[in-house]
Amino acid sequence: MIVGGDGYCGWASALHLSKLGYEVAIVDSLVRRLFDEQLGMYTLTPITSLQKRVKRWKEVSGKQLAVYIGDVCDFEFLEDAVRTFKPEAVVHFGEQRSAPYSMMDRNRAVFTQQNNVIGTMNIMFAIKEFLPECHLVKLGTMGEYGTPNIDIEEGFITITHNGRTDTLPYPKQASSFYHLSKVHDSHNIAFACKAWGMRATDLNQGVVYGVHTDETSLHEELINRLDYDAVFGTALNRFCVQAAVGHPLTIYGKGGQTRGYLDIRDTVRCIELAIANPAKLGEFRVFNQFTEQFSVNDLAKLVTKAGAKLGLEVKATNVPNPRVEAEEHYYNAKHTRLVELGLEPHLLSDALLDSLLNVAVQYADRVDMDQILPAVSWKKISSKPKTVVGTA
Amino acid sequence: MIVGGDGYCGWASALHLSKLGYEVAIVDSLVRRLFDEQLGMYTLTPITSLQKRVKRWKEVSGKQLAVYIGDVCDFEFLEDAVRTFKPEAVVHFGEQRSAPYSMMDRNRAVFTQQNNVIGTMNIMFAIKEFLPECHLVKLGTMGEYGTPNIDIEEGFITITHNGRTDTLPYPKQASSFYHLSKVHDSHNIAFACKAWGMRATDLNQGVVYGVHTDETSLHEELINRLDYDAVFGTALNRFCVQAAVGHPLTIYGKGGQTRGYLDIRDTVRCIELAIANPAKLGEFRVFNQFTEQFSVNDLAKLVTKAGAKLGLEVKATNVPNPRVEAEEHYYNAKHTRLVELGLEPHLLSDALLDSLLNVAVQYADRVDMDQILPAVSWKKISSKPKTVVGTA
Repeated sequence: MIVGGDGYCGWASALHLSKLGYEVAIVDSLVRRLFDEQLGMYTLTPITSLQKRVKRWKEVSGKQLAVYIGDVCDFEFLEDAVRTFKPEAVVHFGEQRSAPYSMMDRNRAVFTQQNNVIGTMNIMFAIKEFLPECHLVKLGTMGEYGTPNIDIEEGFITITHNGRTDTLPYPKQASSFYHLSKVHDSHNIAFACKAWGMRATDLNQGVVYGVHTDETSLHEELINRLDYDAVFGTALNRFCVQAAVGHPLTIYGKGGQTRGYLDIRDTVRCIELAIANPAKLGEFRVFNQFTEQFSVNDLAKLVTKAGAKLGLEVKATNVPNPRVEAEEHYYNAKHTRLVELGLEPHLLSDALLDSLLNVAVQYADRVDMDQILPAVSWKKISSKPKTVVGTA
Repeated sequence: MIVGGDGYCGWASALHLSKLGYEVAIVDSLVRRLFDEQLGMYTLTPITSLQKRVKRWKEVSGKQLAVYIGDVCDFEFLEDAVRTFKPEAVVHFGEQRSAPYSMMDRNRAVFTQQNNVIGTMNIMFAIKEFLPECHLVKLGTMGEYGTPNIDIEEGFITITHNGRTDTLPYPKQASSFYHLSKVHDSHNIAFACKAWGMRATDLNQGVVYGVHTDETSLHEELINRLDYDAVFGTALNRFCVQAAVGHPLTIYGKGGQTRGYLDIRDTVRCIELAIANPAKLGEFRVFNQFTEQFSVNDLAKLVTKAGAKLGLEVKATNVPNPRVEAEEHYYNAKHTRLVELGLEPHLLSDALLDSLLNVAVQYADRVDMDQILPAVSWKKISSKPKTVVGTA
């Protein structure tokens, strides 16, 4: 059961698991499509409706995806879906997943925490009550850790202090209401594993880039979304779109911000590995789900170099950082557990050319130039609702 | 501004600060009184209405308490209260504060996290927007830390790992949806201090015991509540009531569970010290607010001994532990920062006789024997609403 199966990572994962022979259900409220409409910001790639996607996948693959359209914050709906489909694993992508969205105004900050925390609590209760053996695979984020001045471990750290030693949850320093919602989820899930014997894997995912996977490439109506706007676009996808349309790459602040990144083809493989190797009953395990670390300046250089091979002249510009974050810092995060399970990473240097920059160029005429500059300030958020009015 | 100023700690703090000459407003939705009605569980001491309490305080002390009756989850209400009263400090007790209540059923688990997290977010937004210099004094709980096998520090721990060192938030291992809600609050507040320059003090309070303070003792209509039931009663208060009515003290499990405790007279003094010595703008500081550590078995022995002096024959019995928690564990929590500011602790051994056991004996005829046995199981919580029907 893929909660959020109509979204960027969820859709690709649903198809990947379906192709492998898993019986897959998509649970989605489709609210991500509503955000597009409300913000007037749309995916670069022309995605089709969930209903058409599912029908096309049946034609292309012969596999049927079950679909439950509803909100996991609605426990009655969730209970019905879980009791009907009886999943062995619930992969939970179904959260509001944009840091800038969560920092637009008080309403959206509150919505993000309420929606994410309560949706996850409901899933925990549904598993406890109806399918206690079911494996919860929950998408967290590397952003939960922040940028500590020591190595980041996978979920837990062994601390020796005043002569005694314990292995404790890794300290969290998230820096948006969205990232904080994932920290809250992680604490709640760890408790449910301990108190109820639930099994869970928390996948602290890095920044995902890329569009195509083996499955979404099979038909144009299966194409995945590609967000490049300042609210839902992730850094690298946005840079590629900027490069394709001749807009300077917008580096926030000094550009030394370093994070973990991964190709969406690795995301789907990580989900496959997590459900094929489930946590034990009562176990709360954490995998850091990314493959390479880059600073924003690193990304700008890589896109510039790859662009040159496609004949694009790419420039970069430093813009005031709308976020509150360290712009020069130590960063070394462990990410061995998924590799130990069999992950073979795609490398960004290859992916840029074969899955990302060329897609950006292909759909360059769909780019809305008003969407690619930072629009949300961490410091200016207020209780006054922020209305985005579409421009020409 | 005391949010939750009609509650156990809030009422005592409001009077204490008022007596000291602070201009005090109470903000409270009075929902705690609704919980009493819904659960059919009432304070041992006969408290009167908030309106009568405030009127009586005016007569006794000559001081006027401002009153704003409403819910801080309602931002319009909160905005009005904050803009009208213009507090220099907001002391936030206004949360659902019972671990068993949060573990009764899914609805109450969700209510607890939603109410506590969103109420606190609203207060953060109100301070940011209308009174950025205002000091947020937030009640957390020692339960956020759990029972790690290393010393518990005050909010932060310096970790040396792989040759590098950083001071990071102390890892949290809360063990109820209530305790988890406080962990979420702490993370959210730390972020607001960093991103917005808010000033905040997180008071990780231990288990509070006692009834009378200098101010609540001034008139019987100022008396504080004393909860002894299995949902809202704290361990020591419950033991004293059991001793007073000749019911064996109900030790959960092995009784080795060790926690920090403090007298309510020290709670009000800690609040006074926190607001008189505010955090700096942008600072998020954490004080562990308790004075002594005891195991449940220690408490049973102390109550037995003190009971003997009053001529009570006190017995204890081990009952199955309804919670999921370690029953034998290391526990050593630091609590020096409030002492450094001037706290002079009341000691339990004295308080038992002069403020607690005698009160329990005084009101023994009001004890409802059905309320004093564990009623909420951490493992049996379900999505089915739990209805408590009053007994004879």
